[in-house]
Amino acid sequence: MASAPSDALKRRHTRLRAALTEASIDALVVTSLPNILYLTNFSGSAAIVVIDRDRLHFLTDTRYLASVADAQTTPHACPDLAVEVITGSYDASLAACLQAMGGGRVGFEAAHLSVSRFDWLTRTLAAAGRDRPLVPTEGLIEGARVRKDLYELAMLREGARRLDEVATAVFGRVSRGRTEQAIAADIDWELRRAGFERPAFETIVASGPNSALPHARPTERTLGESDVVVLDFGGVYASYCVDITRTVAVGRASERARQVHAAVLGAQQRAIAAVAPGVSRFAIDAAAREALAQAGMGDAFGHGTGHGLGIEVHENPRVVQRRDGVDTRDEAVDTGMVFTIEPGAYFPGWGGVRIEDDVVVTEHGRDCLTRVTTELLEL
Amino acid sequence: MASAPSDALKRRHTRLRAALTEASIDALVVTSLPNILYLTNFSGSAAIVVIDRDRLHFLTDTRYLASVADAQTTPHACPDLAVEVITGSYDASLAACLQAMGGGRVGFEAAHLSVSRFDWLTRTLAAAGRDRPLVPTEGLIEGARVRKDLYELAMLREGARRLDEVATAVFGRVSRGRTEQAIAADIDWELRRAGFERPAFETIVASGPNSALPHARPTERTLGESDVVVLDFGGVYASYCVDITRTVAVGRASERARQVHAAVLGAQQRAIAAVAPGVSRFAIDAAAREALAQAGMGDAFGHGTGHGLGIEVHENPRVVQRRDGVDTRDEAVDTGMVFTIEPGAYFPGWGGVRIEDDVVVTEHGRDCLTRVTTELLEL
Repeated sequence: MASAPSDALKRRHTRLRAALTEASIDALVVTSLPNILYLTNFSGSAAIVVIDRDRLHFLTDTRYLASVADAQTTPHACPDLAVEVITGSYDASLAACLQAMGGGRVGFEAAHLSVSRFDWLTRTLAAAGRDRPLVPTEGLIEGARVRKDLYELAMLREGARRLDEVATAVFGRVSRGRTEQAIAADIDWELRRAGFERPAFETIVASGPNSALPHARPTERTLGESDVVVLDFGGVYASYCVDITRTVAVGRASERARQVHAAVLGAQQRAIAAVAPGVSRFAIDAAAREALAQAGMGDAFGHGTGHGLGIEVHENPRVVQRRDGVDTRDEAVDTGMVFTIEPGAYFPGWGGVRIEDDVVVTEHGRDCLTRVTTELLEL
Repeated sequence: MASAPSDALKRRHTRLRAALTEASIDALVVTSLPNILYLTNFSGSAAIVVIDRDRLHFLTDTRYLASVADAQTTPHACPDLAVEVITGSYDASLAACLQAMGGGRVGFEAAHLSVSRFDWLTRTLAAAGRDRPLVPTEGLIEGARVRKDLYELAMLREGARRLDEVATAVFGRVSRGRTEQAIAADIDWELRRAGFERPAFETIVASGPNSALPHARPTERTLGESDVVVLDFGGVYASYCVDITRTVAVGRASERARQVHAAVLGAQQRAIAAVAPGVSRFAIDAAAREALAQAGMGDAFGHGTGHGLGIEVHENPRVVQRRDGVDTRDEAVDTGMVFTIEPGAYFPGWGGVRIEDDVVVTEHGRDCLTRVTTELLEL
């Protein structure tokens, strides 16, 4: 499996260490697996990292030792890695590691440690004579992850290219008389065949009235003439998530389907055109929302316009409306950010249309990573 | 999708409320999604439940309102459900809900709430004048989930029956010249076709030397004559996870493959035979481990013998070795518990064998839920 070259990892460590210095923290306990993957290339299901000035202490169990040791002999080796094998529990090994490091100021990821683990760790360290409290931190690594580096952009571009291929194959599988579930199974199979590790989320195939639910699950419903069908799927390629939605018609599209599709496509194109360095994420959302409102479909668009993509399928930036008391930071998007643009319009009882592409912010504007046709296909 | 009948939910609520009374807690904040599914049948990706003496306050956002309202008109309705729509953030709505409930003693799931959410909630409630601290709880709902009720057992039996069908179909897809990834894609497609919502975990197809890694990921490796192939896959049926492993040979099995397979199968049968109400989970693990040691393969079995199955694919009981300071509670298994029995033997450079079935503890012993042949098939 592809993974980041050592020099890319080194740059990520350097940036994180600068952030730690800024926060007067000597070492950071990293418990988020996506953040661990970002720092080390490790994609297993259990590990803890403690990064300090000199080293990256990597706690894992015997299941993963062989593959971690192998990776350290490649051009993708993690710099300054000190592997520590778990003998008891992960948190007991973490406590021992922190004890051995002495008296510095140690931070932890407050969003990625449960109250019960934190309480156990605090009690255990105190009993061992370490009375300096652990320091909560928020988003130190996520803040770096929001702007993708060259390796990440290459993987996202390649993933999107392969997702286009999958979409093209999937168009050939949509036909009257097939069920949503059968088409969803075909999509997941095509994702595998195209080299994706797994679907990035539960594949959506929503036909006729079911398409009015943005988060519909595939059912046994059989596709009928003139149904609209929302196809929303994504894959994980080399640990990076890409995501696409197309809405197609079975047989001949109805007049209403054409109108809704045209309005959503117009909104999507307006939002994509609005993307450029320095533009507020709220403004990008507003571009899609205003276009749908002008088409008389403002009330039919209830969700956000997009979400960041990367190691996780939902990351920052969130391209949404400002909501008082919930999401008010008017951040601008910047070069290297990758996110979806996916407005939709939903009419209970009739159905819905959503169109989604993945875009990267470039120096002069934006580049679409997914490129398969957005026309209303009649299949 | 199948879901638990209202009376089953009611019994779960009654049992939980008794546990709350025991702990002198007036209301419990439930943030674990598997626990929420257990209490309400809700299988979406975002909700919070607050259960008190009279009601089950259900906080969710507009995406899920229609499907929750629909479910409430069926025989699977959740008793005493009070739906509260999120207007701001989930945690802001939770704070408002707790404020409105007055001054009782409120518990939360310490293993399922992050330090940052807990701190925010505590500060917000204090600022609103509620100075009574939230009470950490551990495993109140998981403790009930470990023994399956009749509805759950029916779903697990049906899932296992379908998984046997998938295994039979998969045996027909294993042949010389195919890649691990191609076979994994076929397995996932067969899971869908058999009615599973999704794979329960990342499907494992590990051939030849790759089978020496218990957690191998499918690669581009092509199957060759006499390779052993570990096929480990599972599915989620009606929200319940089932899991199976078979090890097969490509073409003619080698003498070594026969020996290792016979030893692992013997160990698996010994462990299954040991299962009965009142037997320690450590003793069940020991039965498998001793059988492999007698065959001279004690060092080749590095992982636990099994794990519980249910809404999650790894639940209690853990059928493992006692480990000082980590896992020492010598709990006995009891009727209604469902778990895997999956010993293996792994030899770096050569390969490995693992055989896994799902068992339920019955009044007089145990019943195997998965039943497809465990013979060493030559395909």
